[in-house]
Amino acid sequence: MHRTVYTSGMTSASTASPARTMSDPASRRPRVAVVGASGYAGGETLRLLAGHPGVEVATVTAHSSAGRPLSEVAPHIDLGHDPVLQETSVETLRGHDVVVLALPHGQSGAIAAALRAEDPSVLVLDLGADHRLESAQDWEDYYRSEHSGTWTYGMPELPLADGTRQRDLLRDAHEIAVPGCNATAVSLALAPVVRAGLVDPAALNAVLPVGYSGAGRAAKQHLLFSEAAGSASPYAVGGTHRHVPEVLQNLRRATGTDGQRLTFTPVLVPMSRGILAVCTARVAEGTTTGDLLDALQRDYAEEHFVTVLPEGAFPTTGEVTGANTLRIGAAVDRRSGQATVISALDNLVKGTAGAALQSLNLALGLPETTGLTRTALAP
Amino acid sequence: MHRTVYTSGMTSASTASPARTMSDPASRRPRVAVVGASGYAGGETLRLLAGHPGVEVATVTAHSSAGRPLSEVAPHIDLGHDPVLQETSVETLRGHDVVVLALPHGQSGAIAAALRAEDPSVLVLDLGADHRLESAQDWEDYYRSEHSGTWTYGMPELPLADGTRQRDLLRDAHEIAVPGCNATAVSLALAPVVRAGLVDPAALNAVLPVGYSGAGRAAKQHLLFSEAAGSASPYAVGGTHRHVPEVLQNLRRATGTDGQRLTFTPVLVPMSRGILAVCTARVAEGTTTGDLLDALQRDYAEEHFVTVLPEGAFPTTGEVTGANTLRIGAAVDRRSGQATVISALDNLVKGTAGAALQSLNLALGLPETTGLTRTALAP
Amino acid sequence: MHRTVYTSGMTSASTASPARTMSDPASRRPRVAVVGASGYAGGETLRLLAGHPGVEVATVTAHSSAGRPLSEVAPHIDLGHDPVLQETSVETLRGHDVVVLALPHGQSGAIAAALRAEDPSVLVLDLGADHRLESAQDWEDYYRSEHSGTWTYGMPELPLADGTRQRDLLRDAHEIAVPGCNATAVSLALAPVVRAGLVDPAALNAVLPVGYSGAGRAAKQHLLFSEAAGSASPYAVGGTHRHVPEVLQNLRRATGTDGQRLTFTPVLVPMSRGILAVCTARVAEGTTTGDLLDALQRDYAEEHFVTVLPEGAFPTTGEVTGANTLRIGAAVDRRSGQATVISALDNLVKGTAGAALQSLNLALGLPETTGLTRTALAP
Amino acid sequence: MHRTVYTSGMTSASTASPARTMSDPASRRPRVAVVGASGYAGGETLRLLAGHPGVEVATVTAHSSAGRPLSEVAPHIDLGHDPVLQETSVETLRGHDVVVLALPHGQSGAIAAALRAEDPSVLVLDLGADHRLESAQDWEDYYRSEHSGTWTYGMPELPLADGTRQRDLLRDAHEIAVPGCNATAVSLALAPVVRAGLVDPAALNAVLPVGYSGAGRAAKQHLLFSEAAGSASPYAVGGTHRHVPEVLQNLRRATGTDGQRLTFTPVLVPMSRGILAVCTARVAEGTTTGDLLDALQRDYAEEHFVTVLPEGAFPTTGEVTGANTLRIGAAVDRRSGQATVISALDNLVKGTAGAALQSLNLALGLPETTGLTRTALAP
Repeated sequence: MHRTVYTSGMTSASTASPARTMSDPASRRPRVAVVGASGYAGGETLRLLAGHPGVEVATVTAHSSAGRPLSEVAPHIDLGHDPVLQETSVETLRGHDVVVLALPHGQSGAIAAALRAEDPSVLVLDLGADHRLESAQDWEDYYRSEHSGTWTYGMPELPLADGTRQRDLLRDAHEIAVPGCNATAVSLALAPVVRAGLVDPAALNAVLPVGYSGAGRAAKQHLLFSEAAGSASPYAVGGTHRHVPEVLQNLRRATGTDGQRLTFTPVLVPMSRGILAVCTARVAEGTTTGDLLDALQRDYAEEHFVTVLPEGAFPTTGEVTGANTLRIGAAVDRRSGQATVISALDNLVKGTAGAALQSLNLALGLPETTGLTRTALAP
Repeated sequence: MHRTVYTSGMTSASTASPARTMSDPASRRPRVAVVGASGYAGGETLRLLAGHPGVEVATVTAHSSAGRPLSEVAPHIDLGHDPVLQETSVETLRGHDVVVLALPHGQSGAIAAALRAEDPSVLVLDLGADHRLESAQDWEDYYRSEHSGTWTYGMPELPLADGTRQRDLLRDAHEIAVPGCNATAVSLALAPVVRAGLVDPAALNAVLPVGYSGAGRAAKQHLLFSEAAGSASPYAVGGTHRHVPEVLQNLRRATGTDGQRLTFTPVLVPMSRGILAVCTARVAEGTTTGDLLDALQRDYAEEHFVTVLPEGAFPTTGEVTGANTLRIGAAVDRRSGQATVISALDNLVKGTAGAALQSLNLALGLPETTGLTRTALAP
Repeated sequence: MHRTVYTSGMTSASTASPARTMSDPASRRPRVAVVGASGYAGGETLRLLAGHPGVEVATVTAHSSAGRPLSEVAPHIDLGHDPVLQETSVETLRGHDVVVLALPHGQSGAIAAALRAEDPSVLVLDLGADHRLESAQDWEDYYRSEHSGTWTYGMPELPLADGTRQRDLLRDAHEIAVPGCNATAVSLALAPVVRAGLVDPAALNAVLPVGYSGAGRAAKQHLLFSEAAGSASPYAVGGTHRHVPEVLQNLRRATGTDGQRLTFTPVLVPMSRGILAVCTARVAEGTTTGDLLDALQRDYAEEHFVTVLPEGAFPTTGEVTGANTLRIGAAVDRRSGQATVISALDNLVKGTAGAALQSLNLALGLPETTGLTRTALAP
Repeated sequence: MHRTVYTSGMTSASTASPARTMSDPASRRPRVAVVGASGYAGGETLRLLAGHPGVEVATVTAHSSAGRPLSEVAPHIDLGHDPVLQETSVETLRGHDVVVLALPHGQSGAIAAALRAEDPSVLVLDLGADHRLESAQDWEDYYRSEHSGTWTYGMPELPLADGTRQRDLLRDAHEIAVPGCNATAVSLALAPVVRAGLVDPAALNAVLPVGYSGAGRAAKQHLLFSEAAGSASPYAVGGTHRHVPEVLQNLRRATGTDGQRLTFTPVLVPMSRGILAVCTARVAEGTTTGDLLDALQRDYAEEHFVTVLPEGAFPTTGEVTGANTLRIGAAVDRRSGQATVISALDNLVKGTAGAALQSLNLALGLPETTGLTRTALAP
C-alpha cells in the first residue's frame, strides 16, 4: 500500500498510486481535518497542530458547535486564522491528507469507513476507542456494541515480543487507533517489568489518580467544579473500566504470552490534566529496585518521550503538563514483597493528542518528534 | 484505676481517688488544654471543641505563635472568647482535666510523662505517633528514634480478635494514642475482610489519594499552592511510610494472627482534606462482592460513624469533609481475582481530631458522639 | 397577623387564630419542608437544619431527582433518616409549619401563593429572587418577567434609616424573601459607610471574586471543573447583574435617600464557596481608615454574625467557609482618595441558607442564632 | 552605543565596537545566562528559552539550590542537556551575551552594575523591580531602600504620548527593566482609555484576582496549598502595592500628563497562574462601550500579543495560560456611569518571562515574536 510520503516542511509525492494528484506537491504541506474540535481531545490536537511546522489545519468540525468560529469554542488556540466549525460529514472531510477523529466512542467507525473507501491514501487517526481492540469479544464485553475492527495501534514505544517496537508498524499505517490515556500510563509502566518476568502477572493492580479533562467536555453534574473540588472520587471499581482489555492486549503483545490479570481503579482528583498510574504486583524473592529500573531502562533508554527516573525518584503529573512525556519511577518494598511502578503523563498530550501526533508523524514520514515538546508547563 | 466520670453537660465527681477536689463539681465542665493549637491537627481539635457542649477549652498553647491571640492564628474558630496562645510547658498545662497534644512526632513523650506523673487523674491524648506502636523495633525501624512506650490506641471501632472492640479499652484509659489518619482509613477498610479470611493477607496493597492538610502547616516548598495545584505527587513509595507498621499492628489485633504484609502508597492530590484509601488484595476463588459487604456489615452495622455502602456504590472524600464519618464500599473483580475495598474519611476529623473526641468522650464517660457530626460540608 | 410562636425545642400554640390545631402542640417541633433539596441552596438548608434543634425536617422535594432517596442526591447530609425526595406540589407541601423554597428564579411565586392562600399561618421563605425587589420596574428591567410582589426582606442586620434594623420586621413575617448572596456581601459592606456619608454614593464599585456553588448545580459546560480550574472568569460585566437593584434598594432603605449608583463585577474563581466583595468609592478629603471602621462598628458592634476587623486586617473567604459569619475590613488610600471596604462570606451560608435560618428563627420566635455557628471549616 | 545585532537563527557581528570578538560569529547563537533559575520567574524564562531557536542557554545560576542539577529543581524543563545550577557571581556570569536576572527585589543592582562595567555590550534584563521606576522618591516610598537607577522599560506595546511605542526604545537598550506582572495587566488595560480622555483619571480603580505563582516559590505559610485552596485573600489593600507607582508612571508616559490616581487591590485566588485586572473608572456622560473598544483598538490593532475582544466578550485567565497574550474586554455601565475594562494575562509569561523575551528579541534584533506563542494551554 503506497502513499504520499512527506518530509518535514516539504512534500514529495511518491511515485506510486494512490497518491493524490497535487497541483504543486513540493509547495504544500499535508492538509489535516480535525473532527470534534470543540471537545478536549480535539481541541488539544488543534493546540499541538498550531505549533506543528509540517502540516496545515485545513478543516475543523464539530457537532453542536458547528457554525461557530473556533475562537469562541477554543479561545486559547491561535491557528493564525479563525476557522468556522463545520458539520461533521463525508463532504466536509473529503480531500484531506489526514483526518483526526475525536468523537465519542462508537461514532468513528462509519465515517472512517466512508473516507477510507473514497480515498485509500487518506490517513485516519481515531482518538476514540472503536478500533483499538483486536478481540471482538473484549469489545462486546466492555463496550456493549458491535466491533468496528482493529486498526494499527498508535503506541510507538510499546516493546513487542519479537524485539521490535509498535513504532515499526506505524510507518505504513493508514488507519491508526490512538491508545486510551489510562491504558498508555499503565501499559508502558508494566510492560517492561512483566516482559522481564520480574513480577507476578496474575495479579497486577493499578490505581490511577486522574484529572477531569479525561472525562470530556460534555456537561454532566458530577463533573462540575463544585462537585469535584475538594474530593477524590473513584469510578469503574471492580474491573469494569474499558481500558482493562486494552492494557492486557498490550501486555500480551509485549510478552507474547497471555495470562496477565489486572485490577484497575481510576480516581478522579481535583486537577484538569494528568494521570498518575500507581501499579503494583508481587515480585519474586530477591528482586530489587535496581532490577525493576534495569528492565525499564532496557526498554526505554532510547525513547525520546519516556524517562526512567533514578532510584528513589518518582514522577508527578505536574512535571508533565502540556508535554508529550511519560516519566516512570519504581521501587521494591522488600517487607511486603511487592513492586510499585509509577508513571505520570498528561492525559491530553502523551495520553491522547501528542500520541496521535507521534503516529501521524511516523505515518507521514516526518521526524517522530515534530511539533512535540518534552518541556512542561509548571507551576 | 479510678477517675472522675462526667456526664454530658454536667459533672459528678466519682467517690474514689485520685479525682481532683473541685470547689463545685456539679457546676463545671472538664477543662481541656490543647497543645499545638496553631497547627492543623490542633486547630481542628479546637474547631470541634468549640461545638462540644461537655467540656471547656481552658488553655491553648503553641510554639512559634505563642503570645498571639487565637483569632490571628486560627481566625475561623470562635470559642466565645479569644485566648492568647501560651508557651507549651508543664506550668501552663498543669491543672487541666484533659490535655490534647498536637505536637510533631517525638515531642510528646517528655511532657506527657511529666503531666501524668504530677496528676495521675489527668487524661492525655496524643495526636502524634509517639505512643501508637507496641513494638519498639517497629518504632525504631520507622521513626529512627527511641520508643516512648505504648498507650491505649484510640480507634473505638477496631474489631478485636476476641470479639470485643477497641472501644472497650478506652473507657478506662488515661493515656490515649490517637491513630494516624492513613492508618485509620486502611485499617478499618481491611480489618473486616482480613478477619473474615476473604482476602490473601500476604500481599495487601493500598494506594491513597490524600489532601495536603495531612502534611501539616509548616511552610515547605513542596506544599506550596503553586507546586500542588494540578499535580498528583506520590511519596514514601516502596513501603517506607510510617503508618505501615500501625496498620499491621491493627490487623494483628483484629485477627489474632500475624503474617499480614502491606504495600502502601500515599499520593498527594490537590485538595486540602480527605483520604481515599483504595485497598486491594487477592480473593479466594468464588468470593463475591456480597461476601465482602457482608463481612464489613458484620463488623460495622452498629457503628455510628462507619457506613458500609450498598453494592455498586463507592465513597468520595467530598461527602465526608468536616464530618466524623468513614464510608466504605467494596467490589470483587472476578476477572482478575482481586477485591477492592475503598474507604473515605476526612483526615483532620475521623482521621485525627474527631477520633480524639470520640476517645475523649469515652474516657470521660460522655456519650461517644458528643460534639461530633455525621453531616459533612459539601459542596 | 397572629401566628404560632415556638420556643426553642418546644412548641406553644398562641391563643389566636390562624394557628393550626395540633394534636399535642407542646410535644412537637415545627415541621419544615425544603423544596429543591437536590440543589446547592436547598442542600445547604438541609445541612444546617440537620443540626438545628428547634425544627423537624418533615418533607424534602425536588424536580428531576424526585423519587430518589436523599442519601443518593446529597450523601453528605445525615438527617437521622433517609427521606425520599417528593415531587414539588401543593399536595406534598400542605400541612407544614415552614416551607423553604429553593427554586430557580421565577418558579416560587405560584406555589407560594397557593400555600399561603390555603394556610395563612404557614411561614414561607423564598431563597430565590422572586420577592426581593419592591420596584416592579426594577424586576422587569433585570429579570425580564412579571413581578411577583414584595416580601419581607430577610437581612436581619441591615440598618434602616429610622434607626431600627431589618430584624424588627422579620419577627412578624410569614413571607420572607431571602437576600441574594452577592447582594448581602456588598450591601452590608457599603451600607454603614454610605449612611455615614463617608463615601461618594454616586460611583460605588464592587468587584467580587466568587466561588462556583453560587452558579448552581445544573450541569453547564462553563461550570465544569476543567473549565473552571486555573481560571478567573468575569460575568455580567457592565452593570447587568441582577443583584445591582437589590443592593441599591438596600442602600436606599439604609439611608432613606436614593441617588446611589453602583458598578458590580463578579468574577468566578476556582473555589466552591465564598464571596469576597471588594468595594471601592471616593472619600471626602481627610477621611481616614479609622472613620470607616468607626462607621462599621457603630452599625455592627452588637451583631453576632458580623465581625469588623481591626485596622490593617482584611478577611478571606477561607475563614468563613461553612460559618454564618460576614467579616469586614476597610482602608482609605489617601494617595488616591478612595476607600476600600472588603467583606467575606460563605455564599451558601450567610449568603443563603444561614440567612434563611436566621429569619426562620426570628419568625418562629426562636433565638436568632439557633442552629448556626460562627466557627468555619478550615483549612 | 553599538552592539552585536543578531538575526534569527544566525549571527552577524556589527562592525562597530564594543562587539565582542567571536571565533566564528556567523555560526553561533547568543549565549544567555539565567540568574535565579530555581524560582518561578527564572524557571519560566528557561521554559520559554528551551523553545527559543535564536539563543543558547549557556549558564543557569541559583542561590540555595546551587550545585544541584536543573532536572531536580525544575524537572518540567528540557533544555536538551541538564546543567548544574551555578552560584550567582560575576565570575559565573562573565562572558555571556545576555544575562537575565530573576532575583528578589533589591539584589540585582550590584551584580548588574559589575557586569555592565566589565562588558558594555552585554544585554542585561532585570525581572525584578529595581530599575523600573524613574522617580527615586517613588522607589523610596514603596520599596523602602535606595534607588538603583532607571533602565529602559520592557513593555513594547505601551503607547507613548508622542505617538511612538515603548518598543522603539528597546531596540537600542542594553539594560532592560522587565515590568511587574500586575502593572502590565493594569497599564495596558487603562492606558488607551485614559489617553483617549474617556475616563476620569483621578479615581481609577483596579481589583485583580491573581494566582499564587506571582508570590514566588519561597516557602511561606500563607502560600501553602491548604491555606490557599478554597479561599480568596486580598493583600496590599489601601494603595500600598508596589505596582501602583509603576502603573502611574506608565500612564504618565502614555498621556504626557500626570494627575492620574489609582486604587489597586490584588486578591489571591486558588490558581497557580493568571491575573484578571478588573479596572473601573467614571466615564463622561454619553460615553459608550463602543468608544472604549475603539480606543483600545486604536492602540492595539497592530499588536501581535494584545487582543481586544468584541463587544460583550470578556477574557478569562484560563485562555491565556502559558501564552504571551494579553486579552482585553470593556463595557460601559450606563446606569452607574462607569467603565469596566478587564484584561487577562499569564503573570509568568506576558507578565514576566514572555515580556522579557519580547524585549530580548528586540534588543538582539530578532523578530519580536521569536520563541513566543499566542496559543495557551487549556483546559
